[in-house]
Amino acid sequence: MNGKRLNPHISIDCVLFGFDFEKLHVLLIDRGRYHSDFLHESIQYALPGDLIYMVEDLDEGAMRILKDLTGLHNIFMEQFGAFGNPNRMNSEADQRWLRSIRSEPEERVVTIGYFSLVKMTDYVPVASSFAKSAVWVPVNEVTELAFDHNELLEKALGSLREHMQTRPIGFNLLPPKFTLGQLQKLYEAIHDREIDKRNFRRKIMKLGIVKELEEKQKGVAHKPARFFSFDKGRYEELLEEGFQNFKL
Amino acid sequence: MNGKRLNPHISIDCVLFGFDFEKLHVLLIDRGRYHSDFLHESIQYALPGDLIYMVEDLDEGAMRILKDLTGLHNIFMEQFGAFGNPNRMNSEADQRWLRSIRSEPEERVVTIGYFSLVKMTDYVPVASSFAKSAVWVPVNEVTELAFDHNELLEKALGSLREHMQTRPIGFNLLPPKFTLGQLQKLYEAIHDREIDKRNFRRKIMKLGIVKELEEKQKGVAHKPARFFSFDKGRYEELLEEGFQNFKL
Repeated sequence: MNGKRLNPHISIDCVLFGFDFEKLHVLLIDRGRYHSDFLHESIQYALPGDLIYMVEDLDEGAMRILKDLTGLHNIFMEQFGAFGNPNRMNSEADQRWLRSIRSEPEERVVTIGYFSLVKMTDYVPVASSFAKSAVWVPVNEVTELAFDHNELLEKALGSLREHMQTRPIGFNLLPPKFTLGQLQKLYEAIHDREIDKRNFRRKIMKLGIVKELEEKQKGVAHKPARFFSFDKGRYEELLEEGFQNFKL
Repeated sequence: MNGKRLNPHISIDCVLFGFDFEKLHVLLIDRGRYHSDFLHESIQYALPGDLIYMVEDLDEGAMRILKDLTGLHNIFMEQFGAFGNPNRMNSEADQRWLRSIRSEPEERVVTIGYFSLVKMTDYVPVASSFAKSAVWVPVNEVTELAFDHNELLEKALGSLREHMQTRPIGFNLLPPKFTLGQLQKLYEAIHDREIDKRNFRRKIMKLGIVKELEEKQKGVAHKPARFFSFDKGRYEELLEEGFQNFKL
């Protein structure tokens, strides 16, 4: 009965983090300016998000919406919260934009936030639907976003950091052989601060989930660093047992 | 404009856990049977939950709904997830009940789950609105609940257990002076398994958040146990530093 009708009250917003071996990025869309009123405005970025269909599971909806707006698919994301401040879409710019794309722009929408972290270089976004462009932006260069999206981004970042404490992840974001310096960079990017090198190495080695390899870097100007690989078996054992809270 | 109109698509369900020094309980309502069709049915319990108002913040909505149905108020709860399976309310009994209380019973509803843990003896529920009764039920005696509420209960229990690992709580659930046996009972109730006594004591003492008192139990048949009190200052320091993952 409800078919492909959109639910005017429920949306999903996706916070997709990407790591490029240097910085933590987030995927944003330029929501576009359809009216002449918008012409004087600078681009306003938003998280990829939209209303869900009347008949659509939330997890599926998250994947579908990300794909519709950015072309990226098969990315499994997790919920990090629901956001329902009744004034979250009431700014003039937000209302103007909603009137240009929605049939019931004044309805109050509760949004469910989903997040994930991917190896950025594997995912090249292609904007579609109402997104005018879709771009990876370094998290610490993000300025004012649409709606309450800055709040969502903050909250997702908090969830990502918590995840890193209770189940250290990120190994799938690095090449099969990596240096501890590269791994440290990932942690520094996510926590947005410098981490003491010796301390980091001691803690990572204590976790027992990286294995030292014989091989070292070649053809580098500095002293070649040793390569490590990720011990997936040990990692899964630890997940069962429960990690020590991995605090840097 | 929207005023006190209910949002037909968004509900909140509350999973309120209570501890009575013996067992972990959950607060349930008997959703009542308004039609003669219901007379042959046994009571069906549900989590206290309802649609939110068009203009209502989610956190406020959670408190308001809990109060409307059970009389309990000023209970601060946290989100643990959004549930949106399109078929979550499609069972015949659920539909019959919805038709008896809702103006748009067939609309698909996404629900936001909120949970908290309180000292059960401080909260005596009084059913109101469509709740026919409101009762504390031991978690491991809960049978089939309405809608997807068994799933919500499971998920909330998982969140509660996770909380106990990263920020050991529960001290506000015990009297100011307590025995380690009482504290152990709380952990056993939440994790639903027996815990080795020596191991538990060693780990709790290592956390450094309980202080041994001079005083012992009086007038008990067994060997009197020593009382402990909770070191709130140390607890808050640890929250700042990050607890070691407290795994039993």
